Amino acid sequence: MAHIDLGVDEQKHPGITGLLMFRPETAKPLMELAQVLLRGPHSLTPGERELIAAYVSGLNECKFCYSSHSASAAAQLDADPTLIDQVLDDLDSAPVSAKLRALLCIAGVVRDDGRMVTTELVAAARAEGATDLEIHDTVLLAAAFSMYNRYVDGLGTLAPDSSQIYADATRRIIEFGYTR
Amino acid sequence: MAHIDLGVDEQKHPGITGLLMFRPETAKPLMELAQVLLRGPHSLTPGERELIAAYVSGLNECKFCYSSHSASAAAQLDADPTLIDQVLDDLDSAPVSAKLRALLCIAGVVRDDGRMVTTELVAAARAEGATDLEIHDTVLLAAAFSMYNRYVDGLGTLAPDSSQIYADATRRIIEFGYTR
Repeated sequence: MAHIDLGVDEQKHPGITGLLMFRPETAKPLMELAQVLLRGPHSLTPGERELIAAYVSGLNECKFCYSSHSASAAAQLDADPTLIDQVLDDLDSAPVSAKLRALLCIAGVVRDDGRMVTTELVAAARAEGATDLEIHDTVLLAAAFSMYNRYVDGLGTLAPDSSQIYADATRRIIEFGYTR
Repeated sequence: MAHIDLGVDEQKHPGITGLLMFRPETAKPLMELAQVLLRGPHSLTPGERELIAAYVSGLNECKFCYSSHSASAAAQLDADPTLIDQVLDDLDSAPVSAKLRALLCIAGVVRDDGRMVTTELVAAARAEGATDLEIHDTVLLAAAFSMYNRYVDGLGTLAPDSSQIYADATRRIIEFGYTR
């Protein structure tokens, strides 16, 4: 049970979904930010961006966000669901492109502390073809999931075990986006 | 100099301001969130909410955000600027209300890891009169500044030394808000 009374059935509205219903004024910009970062027009695919979100959420051990965004990443990358675990277990050997690996490396550092991003890490991403916009959005994605993870866990919301729930949510997001 | 080419004079547009100009699509929800959390109608005053933002930014050692929001908190609380340093140095003895102290305590924990918020910490805030909305917004404020801090520092933006710059920004925000 969440730390505050959300006024909803948490079984039906787990994780961030109950929080969004509790406070529509903050829900609006929170979901608009997710929509732009994860589904807006971009040179990184939605699947690649969901993988960055899943990676940060996995490092932060936020069960609800990790389950949601790893399901979404696997579906949109048309990848084996174990890909996300491979990225988390050993980024160096995981089967992702060199550019995405360099961006995931930056995301992991931002998740720890933004000040740890070095010119060398940025140059390495650029050497693999990353643009300034891709580097910007990777940093902001990692920063944003440092927020969403803390929001969801800081208020003690429910994180279901059933993978079906996350698969259903993925289908809705692919069809309607984060701001329907 | 920032890690990417922001296309602006960073001396004139330091910290988050250059980032907002670089990517207006993400600037919109980022500033709307700040507006609701820091300046929207609320039972916590704008000064109290700015103090929570300054506290988290200070713990994260984000110079630009800490300088900005501590200037804003001091101005709006009509407090000695050293109040914010006192809160950072020793929250237990700092001259703030018991309710605000309990909320700051939650914010500090969320800044570390959302999962560390306990029912005891929430009960302690409630015992001092904190409402569910105040507890919600404190958690989200701390989570949001975990994002803003990483965004500003992760892209290596400039943080001016001159306190006049932050004082000027405070005046503009008090007059026009975060979404002008």
